[in-house]
Amino acid sequence: MDLTTALAAIYPPDRLLTRASALASYESDALTAFRTRPLAVVLAETRQEVIDTVRLCHAAGVPFVARGSGTSLSGGSVPLDDGIVIALNRLNRIVRLDPVDRIAVVEPGVINLDISAAAEPFGLYYAPDPSSQSVCTIGGNVAFNSGGAHCFRHGMTANHVLGLEVVLPDGEVVRLGGDSVEDVGPDLAGLFVGSEGLFGVALEVTVRLLPRPESYRTVLASYTSLQAAGDAVTRIIAAGLLPGAMEIMDRLAMDAAEAAVHAGYPPGAAAVLLVELEGDAAQAEAELARLSAVLEASGPSHVHIAANAEERALLWKGRKCAFSAVGRLSPDFIVQDGVVPRTKLGDALVAIEQLSRQHGVRVANVFHAGDGNLHPLILYDGREPGALARAEALATDILRLCIRLGGSITGEHGVGLEKRAFLPEMYRPEDIAFMQRLRESVDGRRLANRGKMLETPA
Amino acid sequence: MDLTTALAAIYPPDRLLTRASALASYESDALTAFRTRPLAVVLAETRQEVIDTVRLCHAAGVPFVARGSGTSLSGGSVPLDDGIVIALNRLNRIVRLDPVDRIAVVEPGVINLDISAAAEPFGLYYAPDPSSQSVCTIGGNVAFNSGGAHCFRHGMTANHVLGLEVVLPDGEVVRLGGDSVEDVGPDLAGLFVGSEGLFGVALEVTVRLLPRPESYRTVLASYTSLQAAGDAVTRIIAAGLLPGAMEIMDRLAMDAAEAAVHAGYPPGAAAVLLVELEGDAAQAEAELARLSAVLEASGPSHVHIAANAEERALLWKGRKCAFSAVGRLSPDFIVQDGVVPRTKLGDALVAIEQLSRQHGVRVANVFHAGDGNLHPLILYDGREPGALARAEALATDILRLCIRLGGSITGEHGVGLEKRAFLPEMYRPEDIAFMQRLRESVDGRRLANRGKMLETPA
Repeated sequence: MDLTTALAAIYPPDRLLTRASALASYESDALTAFRTRPLAVVLAETRQEVIDTVRLCHAAGVPFVARGSGTSLSGGSVPLDDGIVIALNRLNRIVRLDPVDRIAVVEPGVINLDISAAAEPFGLYYAPDPSSQSVCTIGGNVAFNSGGAHCFRHGMTANHVLGLEVVLPDGEVVRLGGDSVEDVGPDLAGLFVGSEGLFGVALEVTVRLLPRPESYRTVLASYTSLQAAGDAVTRIIAAGLLPGAMEIMDRLAMDAAEAAVHAGYPPGAAAVLLVELEGDAAQAEAELARLSAVLEASGPSHVHIAANAEERALLWKGRKCAFSAVGRLSPDFIVQDGVVPRTKLGDALVAIEQLSRQHGVRVANVFHAGDGNLHPLILYDGREPGALARAEALATDILRLCIRLGGSITGEHGVGLEKRAFLPEMYRPEDIAFMQRLRESVDGRRLANRGKMLETPA
Repeated sequence: MDLTTALAAIYPPDRLLTRASALASYESDALTAFRTRPLAVVLAETRQEVIDTVRLCHAAGVPFVARGSGTSLSGGSVPLDDGIVIALNRLNRIVRLDPVDRIAVVEPGVINLDISAAAEPFGLYYAPDPSSQSVCTIGGNVAFNSGGAHCFRHGMTANHVLGLEVVLPDGEVVRLGGDSVEDVGPDLAGLFVGSEGLFGVALEVTVRLLPRPESYRTVLASYTSLQAAGDAVTRIIAAGLLPGAMEIMDRLAMDAAEAAVHAGYPPGAAAVLLVELEGDAAQAEAELARLSAVLEASGPSHVHIAANAEERALLWKGRKCAFSAVGRLSPDFIVQDGVVPRTKLGDALVAIEQLSRQHGVRVANVFHAGDGNLHPLILYDGREPGALARAEALATDILRLCIRLGGSITGEHGVGLEKRAFLPEMYRPEDIAFMQRLRESVDGRRLANRGKMLETPA
């Protein structure tokens, strides 16, 4: 029996999309460079539908990819030609929320911020905060081990997922991890988190909830150079402070954010450093005094402490919308995602500036400074002949720079389609072979998100 | 060629042990109930020796187990008959310590506390602190994902291992993870940590170092019942406090510790709760005020705040030696290691007391209260007929209680030889099959630490 016919036995016509017009919006994700038409999209509403779909794909030998809101910046949720997209947005129930044990059990299509909203009445929240948190789903966060501004203090998604129920690529349903960090044996939940869909589809995710900090103190320091902002980060860490977040934006990124939301970033500065302290009021106040002293010594042109929650929200809004706001400065852009050891931050910034000049391509810098996670936004005009090629050449040089400095080709966006070619530059063949061996033990037919992380393009 | 002859080509006679007298001390570990004589013990001094040994074992089809100081409480480092023990204590170099990036790269035979000693001049330390930290090695900590009193705040070993170099059971050498938490793809370092030796032998471990807290405030609260001490823990967490450690000891455990070190535990109390706050001085002081208010409301019979570093050290010394001190109260004992959801702590304590009465066997309770990690010490006299059987029956009932309450059969000691039979009570067959599938993809011949975690005894 043909796969589409088999799927039609599971899904009513309005939840089995096969017409070109209906498939169009599933052909790509937030990395718009890749576009492929799947054989069909199923809009699953129950976990059993997901399991049955995977089993049918396995029987038919047809690749599949799970998809939430499609916010992947690495092409992680782009389907293959004639593959199946399993859309999970309708599996969006919060199954259980235990405020005493501080866990939530959620379906994969739950939106990141909705977990915090549900936990709010209990004074709790879900910590990992990707910039897309108001739309991205927890299933995607799990697949790509998503980070966010506050992951410097609290850790990435992997640190917050305790357990998973998963359908493996062969249709077997297993539970990985549990309700607590004190689990038995190897960290199988950790193996699944960040595996970019290669090990199957999450049906249910158990996450940790944290108590909401009683208070925040948010400080914006301006500098006359990007390097000076980077140095301030090193000083803050050396002083033993552990802020919730430390973000740097350069002039171009500020201009973009200003144009979009009037966040009030200082007009003259070459770079700003946004530092946020969190904790109970006395603690945040005590740390603020220490932070102020450290910042003072770092030679800022200006230091501003958010006076209230509104000012804080505005500073963050500017930062969180910086990516999309860059669209106001340039018709097209590539968001890059590389990591350097925190101590190499200064070197990396100088080198990126040189590369930008060398290629004649503008770069706006926005990054999670505490983690050494760079997000250069490479600006180009796609209508200009050769512009995309130049932008891509610069993006490639930046990734190679990260590898050379002992860092990584991705902090949080993942390998996806975009960075498959760089894996062999970062890992030795035997290390990739080991990942491949694990993958094949789970998915001998390579059906789950085929064509992504472990498959180097010709 | 016979395996011993092949090993003799690698090791000089004084580092290849084959005589019964020399093998004796490698026949068991801190769980003395199991004892088996290996074919040979090799005392490796270089990583190449370890690699070559694993390759020879693989070629010969002979099982092997790596061993550090043999402090495993689950029989995790007990060899098999005619297996090979690879002793790693001499691989004890700290290869690199980077105080700015805050990482240490160490060989597997490095003693846990030696990492902190090396990091001390830089104001840093290695956080996971098993009670055996002055003798246990990092390789064993990795294999069993060891915890300790301060892991409530800082997380278990898995949270502190960033990367590993490993020889797989087939002799292939791979790197898992890296220097940073922002790694690419699935968490392969996390897969190895806690795998109890099934995935090969660590050759090098990259760990995170944390800044030493500027100050500690250590508080001892006494209660007239164990239940009241447990309730105080729930109150502390509900108040949003995050102490470095929260430990509970009952009367019997205190008596043992008192007999050994005169820690100054209050003579009349039924239970004590040891809470330690950490941070900069102002923060610890502010939290102490909040903690004191919470403790006051929990109805303690007495609250004592350690006046200085000596008093703090003494309180901790009592707690850390409680296990071994129990030997003063009873000729023999079993240390159990189970986990219950923190909210079930009170129920678990009541049930353990009932079980103790029912079996007519004394139990001393010492536990990491913040994690719900119980360490009942089951006291018996091995010379008394049937006493061991009664103690084991009680231990079994306690583990089943933990499973029933939604917890785990091990918090930090691992499955090892001791708890193999309980795995099928905690996991569904398909979940165990998945672990087995991963294991076989890495070790098709099941040579690495054969007979342990995933092998249910007949």
